Amino acid sequence: MKIAIIGGTGDQGLGLALRFAKIGEHVIVGSRDLKKAESAVDLMKNLLDTNNLPNVTAMTNQDAALEGDIIILTVPLQAQMVTLKSIKDHLNGEIFVDATSPLEGCLGGKATRYVDLWEGSAAERSAEFLKEKAIVVSAFCNISASSLTSIKENVECDCLVSGDNHDANLTVMELAEKISGIKAVECGALENARIVEKLTPLLINLNIRNKIKNAGIRITNL
Amino acid sequence: MKIAIIGGTGDQGLGLALRFAKIGEHVIVGSRDLKKAESAVDLMKNLLDTNNLPNVTAMTNQDAALEGDIIILTVPLQAQMVTLKSIKDHLNGEIFVDATSPLEGCLGGKATRYVDLWEGSAAERSAEFLKEKAIVVSAFCNISASSLTSIKENVECDCLVSGDNHDANLTVMELAEKISGIKAVECGALENARIVEKLTPLLINLNIRNKIKNAGIRITNL
Repeated sequence: MKIAIIGGTGDQGLGLALRFAKIGEHVIVGSRDLKKAESAVDLMKNLLDTNNLPNVTAMTNQDAALEGDIIILTVPLQAQMVTLKSIKDHLNGEIFVDATSPLEGCLGGKATRYVDLWEGSAAERSAEFLKEKAIVVSAFCNISASSLTSIKENVECDCLVSGDNHDANLTVMELAEKISGIKAVECGALENARIVEKLTPLLINLNIRNKIKNAGIRITNL
Repeated sequence: MKIAIIGGTGDQGLGLALRFAKIGEHVIVGSRDLKKAESAVDLMKNLLDTNNLPNVTAMTNQDAALEGDIIILTVPLQAQMVTLKSIKDHLNGEIFVDATSPLEGCLGGKATRYVDLWEGSAAERSAEFLKEKAIVVSAFCNISASSLTSIKENVECDCLVSGDNHDANLTVMELAEKISGIKAVECGALENARIVEKLTPLLINLNIRNKIKNAGIRITNL
């Protein structure tokens, strides 16, 4: 299964790419600019301390969307729509994981506040725009980039997964749990991303308050 | 310190009253109807397996608000404003803990969805209405009533505390951590209740999905 990470050169995307590359998954690092994607793959080689990452490929976002069996979107909110528009025609009904957090910081405000989107959540915004071109699942938006890039440590955070297609949710949960430390929790329909995405600014707030970079959450008593 | 629980006969209020009574705190169980408050205290005696609870008193909400050194509001959203109106004149600058969750279920909808309040959160609604009559702190809204009333077990949930007065937050955090298993996490200003309160419908959703009654959350890496 080829995992295409759209916006794979940002912290969150690079972190996911690193984690999946480390365990031998086939990863495509996508970027608007092919050279940036290639630089990100070079950085991954450094961070993974290897000259050779045969399972990782750099591509433009469009090619990544075309080649990927599962697509993960990791761009900031202000880049979400323009990125979706640029790749929509390259999708063909794949599982599309939206990891966008609707942070007010993306609009010049505070990263500790959310903004309300008309569709209810960033993931529902993707679903409304992509329609039958993808099966949208919300996941990974609470997992800190810092936790993901600290590749020697477990990620101490649950991955809350919401989506209208149960089988697609299960596929994403299985993928998420390949990352050491992550436990995946199915939260039901995609509309629940309205709550899950809003947790991210709270975790950023707790990071700032406590001078850390990796506050996460665990659901208890499951 | 006398802890007055306004709406102390509901599940959440009774659970908090039980936990505080069990550790010897002075608790006032408030209700619109004094007889209901008295019945709740009788139920507490049964659940705590004692004939004698000298540290627990039944009162009307008004008297409870007047007598309490710290006030905890545990009513459903549809009763919040009418309750606030009934007790406002009996407050005198005390710490006022709002544990209200803005569940759509309170308006005939689903308990797994939130409603947006004009003030941003139920706690901010209390603060706007009570003005200088109280120092409002948001806390306890994520702690399941079932966990609280299972008095022999630890409460496996963090208590996320938000409020504009840091000292008041610390007082509430200290109180919360008297309950076995609870860890209190300060989340900053009262506006953060907008996120924290919205977690409750997600936890209710996870309860329903997993056929449990006590899903909770823990913040990791603090």
